[in-house]
Amino acid sequence: MRIIKANEFKLAREVEYGTPEQNKTVSDILERVRTEGDAAVLRFTESFDKVKLEAGQLRVTEQEITAAYDRVEPRFIEALRRAAANIRSFHEKQKRNSWMDVQPDGTTLGQIIRPLRRVGLYVPGGKAAYPSSVLMNAIPAQVAGVPEIVMVTPASTGGKEGIDPYILVAAAEAGIREMYRVGGAQAVAALAYGTETIPPVDKIVGPGNIYVALAKRYVYGVVDIDSIAGPSEILVLADDSADPSYIAADLLSQAEHDEMASAILVTTSRPLAEAVLAEVETQLATLPRKEIAEKSIRERGAILLADSEVEAVATSNRLAPEHLELLVREPFGWLGRIENAGAIFLGPYSSEPVGDYFAGPNHILPTNGTARFSSPLSVDDFLKKSSVIHYSKEALLRDGEDIMTLAKHEGLDAHARAIQVRLEKEGERT
Amino acid sequence: MRIIKANEFKLAREVEYGTPEQNKTVSDILERVRTEGDAAVLRFTESFDKVKLEAGQLRVTEQEITAAYDRVEPRFIEALRRAAANIRSFHEKQKRNSWMDVQPDGTTLGQIIRPLRRVGLYVPGGKAAYPSSVLMNAIPAQVAGVPEIVMVTPASTGGKEGIDPYILVAAAEAGIREMYRVGGAQAVAALAYGTETIPPVDKIVGPGNIYVALAKRYVYGVVDIDSIAGPSEILVLADDSADPSYIAADLLSQAEHDEMASAILVTTSRPLAEAVLAEVETQLATLPRKEIAEKSIRERGAILLADSEVEAVATSNRLAPEHLELLVREPFGWLGRIENAGAIFLGPYSSEPVGDYFAGPNHILPTNGTARFSSPLSVDDFLKKSSVIHYSKEALLRDGEDIMTLAKHEGLDAHARAIQVRLEKEGERT
Repeated sequence: MRIIKANEFKLAREVEYGTPEQNKTVSDILERVRTEGDAAVLRFTESFDKVKLEAGQLRVTEQEITAAYDRVEPRFIEALRRAAANIRSFHEKQKRNSWMDVQPDGTTLGQIIRPLRRVGLYVPGGKAAYPSSVLMNAIPAQVAGVPEIVMVTPASTGGKEGIDPYILVAAAEAGIREMYRVGGAQAVAALAYGTETIPPVDKIVGPGNIYVALAKRYVYGVVDIDSIAGPSEILVLADDSADPSYIAADLLSQAEHDEMASAILVTTSRPLAEAVLAEVETQLATLPRKEIAEKSIRERGAILLADSEVEAVATSNRLAPEHLELLVREPFGWLGRIENAGAIFLGPYSSEPVGDYFAGPNHILPTNGTARFSSPLSVDDFLKKSSVIHYSKEALLRDGEDIMTLAKHEGLDAHARAIQVRLEKEGERT
Repeated sequence: MRIIKANEFKLAREVEYGTPEQNKTVSDILERVRTEGDAAVLRFTESFDKVKLEAGQLRVTEQEITAAYDRVEPRFIEALRRAAANIRSFHEKQKRNSWMDVQPDGTTLGQIIRPLRRVGLYVPGGKAAYPSSVLMNAIPAQVAGVPEIVMVTPASTGGKEGIDPYILVAAAEAGIREMYRVGGAQAVAALAYGTETIPPVDKIVGPGNIYVALAKRYVYGVVDIDSIAGPSEILVLADDSADPSYIAADLLSQAEHDEMASAILVTTSRPLAEAVLAEVETQLATLPRKEIAEKSIRERGAILLADSEVEAVATSNRLAPEHLELLVREPFGWLGRIENAGAIFLGPYSSEPVGDYFAGPNHILPTNGTARFSSPLSVDDFLKKSSVIHYSKEALLRDGEDIMTLAKHEGLDAHARAIQVRLEKEGERT
């Protein structure tokens, strides 16, 4: 980690397309599951997850879910429930109403908003099985009113004992009752195309490894998908009022995620920059995930010195961070100038983990600079809209000629005739 | 076109991925433009569009826009302006406010909604250069508040005379002042990566041929894209109160778009089915685009007989049509049962072209059955959201332990420490 000039810094951005071999593997798996259903799902589960199942064992039973509650400490369940309540409460505020615009001439135009019917949530196995991500994916769908939310997770998630009980509890707390032990590209295929045991969904959300990400890319169009997440990022925008130990701790909490994670401080204060640099070294020394955090900090971390507040804000807007912390004297005064950021954390007590786990806003955020055009996961992502058009006879007689003029110019005569046949008949009748 | 049982009908759905050769061509073009900028754009324009330009000629001049107005008949401009006003008025109703939830303990959570900064609109050349589509793409972006909307269209759009004046007028009416004569995958590349002459955008919208569609797929992630449009579709749901000549005209207006277009009637009335079948033949005979419409009607058209209203609605929901007409006695009474449809047209005077050109709702709609999870193009597509999280000291002291419990379970100790360092310091200070 070095102190460098803000305007000289560039962040490497890569969109991950996978190798040709990975793409081939994924498209083969998809095709097998599409044509062979359960049989292919079971075969891939045996070969990749080393778990031999029959079709009847794919679905997680009610007993397993109940048993999971006994394996999780009550302190965890309480914290999870409070987090879930906050997440639910925040997302309730995102709900939208259908609307109609009823005009005096009898014309009615509107927009009907409805939940998707069935959504699949992918939960990765191993160390990436995060209960918090289960809540963050499932609760917006539940608040949107999606009647069927189904979870898939590799059979090997919790090792030989079956699926991680913390994941089962988080899913149950988020209202999910339909869960299958299947992972990888075969799980994405099962959700997209359906099998004898797993009915198809309308949308697939949730993170996964490169095979899962490629599979989601392939099935997009057959079903909807969420955005493909890149490495996690934090940008701290701080003035000399900020506590260097808070900044260092927050940068490291990002860095421990992943060697590819970026942790960046932007400040106009050189003393702060130097204090944070020292604090990062001190705190890094005793971190359990030191190895990951250190690689991330050394290779992708940076402390950027800006000549002015204006340059500091411009740098942040240019980098469009996933997480942005405003550790400045009057953070709300800066808000209007922030153009691109997934989530904005204001002031010294709004450390990123507050948002990652608990406050209520979603922690699934646009990565890789996509905050320029993308948004946090929200209730909107589980809703669809239909336009409504009701024209009155009066309106059609008034507008018919204009419509025909436009249609004829585009060479679409049958469009014009669909209006004309009505004008002629209705003209006769009146 | 045949009369068949509704529950036996299946619609062929294909997601278009292009041939390996087409993919190779597109990725080569993208890479060239990314690394060589204008030089590559000009070279591809010469080889594909047969137009030799210099970089200084890429941008359409103010004089050309002014001259275009003289080449378009006033009657067309008037109709276009009335359509634009309706489209603007409908989309104004889609605007959304940022919101904040200020809690008694000082915690503030919220969602900030902002327009994208710069959007590129692709307009195809030749016969597919539709002024109506220019309005439908540009106006929602304009209503969203996007400050920079830029149009690209092939240099050959209007033949040797330059860009189609109708397209220039439509773009100018929609408030676009920045336009470039470049098309194909090279235009998508220029918009995504930027060149010396064309600054990069945050999102690319608008229809195009297979090369344009593939290029958009590739650059997704670097920029946002709209959905890739499939062939157009109409489904008419009618009872015996409907006028067969209206239905036939509306089916044909869809069929003339494209040989791949689908026009489908679903009804419980056999006499109506037979009357529509006869009417389609009669009207088809005199259509200027008879050849296209006939192929579409014969190969992709169908009249489906349902045993009951319930089955008729279920069939429509299953097919999830882009356009749905309810030509029934009390169309508003059916609305609640319609689950999947891009746009719903109610009653005899709401012929599809009313919505295609004029009423105000967007004509860019989910195709290929994607109305199950996708929505009409709207102001939402040009907005992005940022979450806002401001925790008070009081709130952090209250929730800190819960947050640490959740973080530690996930093995993310640096997350827990970012909270702990604050609890320790703030504990001291109070």
